[in-house]
Amino acid sequence: MSKIFVDACLGKETPYTPVWMMRQAGRYLPEYMKVRGEAGDFLSLCHNPKMAAEVTIQPLDIVGVDAAILFSDILVIPDEMGMDLEFIKGFGPKFNDPLTCQADLDRLIGGEVAANKLTYVYDTIKLLRKQLDERGDEIALIGFTGAPWTLATYMIEGQGTKTYNLCKKLMYSNPELLHNILREVTEVVKYYMEKQIEAGIDVVQIFDSWAAAIEPGKYDEFSWKYMVEICDHLKAKYPDTPIIMFPKGIPAFLDNIYGNFDVFGVDWSTPMALAKEKLGDKYVLQGNMEPCRLYSKEATTACVESLAKTMKEGRHIFNLGHGILPDVPVENAIHFVAECKRASKR
Amino acid sequence: MSKIFVDACLGKETPYTPVWMMRQAGRYLPEYMKVRGEAGDFLSLCHNPKMAAEVTIQPLDIVGVDAAILFSDILVIPDEMGMDLEFIKGFGPKFNDPLTCQADLDRLIGGEVAANKLTYVYDTIKLLRKQLDERGDEIALIGFTGAPWTLATYMIEGQGTKTYNLCKKLMYSNPELLHNILREVTEVVKYYMEKQIEAGIDVVQIFDSWAAAIEPGKYDEFSWKYMVEICDHLKAKYPDTPIIMFPKGIPAFLDNIYGNFDVFGVDWSTPMALAKEKLGDKYVLQGNMEPCRLYSKEATTACVESLAKTMKEGRHIFNLGHGILPDVPVENAIHFVAECKRASKR
Repeated sequence: MSKIFVDACLGKETPYTPVWMMRQAGRYLPEYMKVRGEAGDFLSLCHNPKMAAEVTIQPLDIVGVDAAILFSDILVIPDEMGMDLEFIKGFGPKFNDPLTCQADLDRLIGGEVAANKLTYVYDTIKLLRKQLDERGDEIALIGFTGAPWTLATYMIEGQGTKTYNLCKKLMYSNPELLHNILREVTEVVKYYMEKQIEAGIDVVQIFDSWAAAIEPGKYDEFSWKYMVEICDHLKAKYPDTPIIMFPKGIPAFLDNIYGNFDVFGVDWSTPMALAKEKLGDKYVLQGNMEPCRLYSKEATTACVESLAKTMKEGRHIFNLGHGILPDVPVENAIHFVAECKRASKR
Repeated sequence: MSKIFVDACLGKETPYTPVWMMRQAGRYLPEYMKVRGEAGDFLSLCHNPKMAAEVTIQPLDIVGVDAAILFSDILVIPDEMGMDLEFIKGFGPKFNDPLTCQADLDRLIGGEVAANKLTYVYDTIKLLRKQLDERGDEIALIGFTGAPWTLATYMIEGQGTKTYNLCKKLMYSNPELLHNILREVTEVVKYYMEKQIEAGIDVVQIFDSWAAAIEPGKYDEFSWKYMVEICDHLKAKYPDTPIIMFPKGIPAFLDNIYGNFDVFGVDWSTPMALAKEKLGDKYVLQGNMEPCRLYSKEATTACVESLAKTMKEGRHIFNLGHGILPDVPVENAIHFVAECKRASKR
């Protein structure tokens, strides 16, 4: 059965432009908060295939999106590489043993051995595959990973950061060590995404959430080329699985985008018309409504109509330009999804 | 006496490209930490003209920059408009009474009355004017303000924010109130900068530190036009005082830059070659070394030489692409300044 979202990723004609939202399985949904409360904490929810599958499915019926995205977190990867991850309430993720030298890196578990430890992710996907097939609708399942650079920032800083100064010290003073870390993470991610595909996902998204932390002249060297390497690896084995790249906040790098992938995720700092001009011939474009427009139905409709007009002759998937915020009213998210389908109906 | 920095701002030929650093009077300098310790806290230092002048002067002799920038903080403006400002150690600035409605705004002090309360800033400038004139060198004095948008973010959120969701709720659901706040701040800033000029500054810089928080299609409406309004006001009265605009992180807005000012400050997310192509004919360009390059002398030299080459035929002022970080070795800052002068010598 052909799925409208997969078709759109591959640039095929669809009856309307499909839509999903980053963080659509998340805190704005009371149904999600209930399951999360039952799970205990965030990591326990990631580790519980039955509950993770449940929250993955929730936005399909509540909000009406065309794709489900696996509920998980990018930091399960370094966690299973042997780093000590905690999610601290009101603070966010924290690694208690950040990487400071080659010996720290050498102690980690690498490659397929690390990827094999993420069984709860593959189990969640298998469960979702079964549940989605049973529904009989045309909903696609998106699997994902963090980009090596974004994962490395947490592994080096130990936590979220405004300045990335530990990463930058390596970038400018010890680039060899930073590349060693990035290479190691890249290898794990290759196996991880292969196994996600084998378990049943339809589409891969690679999130480079902290792309904007790198000066444009260094972005290829420290992030993009590793993301492209993952694409090459996956496309050699699974040429029919679409790949979405989402490097957040790099409008000044658009002229330098290259690689074997299908969809370029446009964040809200890049005007869609600019992305279309630079990349629209080569890639399907996904995005990019400023998530805060969801606070207002009028602002949402205005943006959806403008995007539909800009992308009328282009290949497009509707999404937000970043994740939905926890304090957005559910009815506004429903309104966004309905407006996307209405405004793009062919 | 002609000052090399002022000449460069006005696009005149200079013997080398002048250089200064954002946050050059700051925590990376032990001499600054000493004075700050004596002052007690950050706000007390801003309120003490003698000490504020002392730290303003420090980087001239220690680092060798071509301009001094008034030591102060952008948040003294809303503080004197009647808001309750605190700097909390390890947390940052906090307004205990953020603006939530028109009545909150109506309670504030506006226009010249608010600007008149910032006497400690004008006293610092007068003291600096005297001290700089006595030195007899050609060091220029930069005064500054935050852009209305950046000031408004703190006044509305009450503190630093990652999502700006209170501001964005206004932007999309109640733009009238947001514009009322921006207009009120703009009026105070006009008087504030007039009085800074009257007190003796040579050059004005307007910092829009949180420019990147606005989607490009809304940036003119909610920030840039207010900054341009301030320029128009100042240029009508003080046509010879150069104005530097520094909107941080808006590479996708470069095609839409307009206004009566002299220098465009390029942050590190915008490649200098791109800024030169889009704006170099119209404005002198300032910037834009990624501040973390200061962790390495080699990375610093490589960037300075590349900037000197890119701007060889253009009008340029060296600076960082954002503020210097507290953990940079002083000798690396000295190296940066010396390299800028060496690489651009004519």
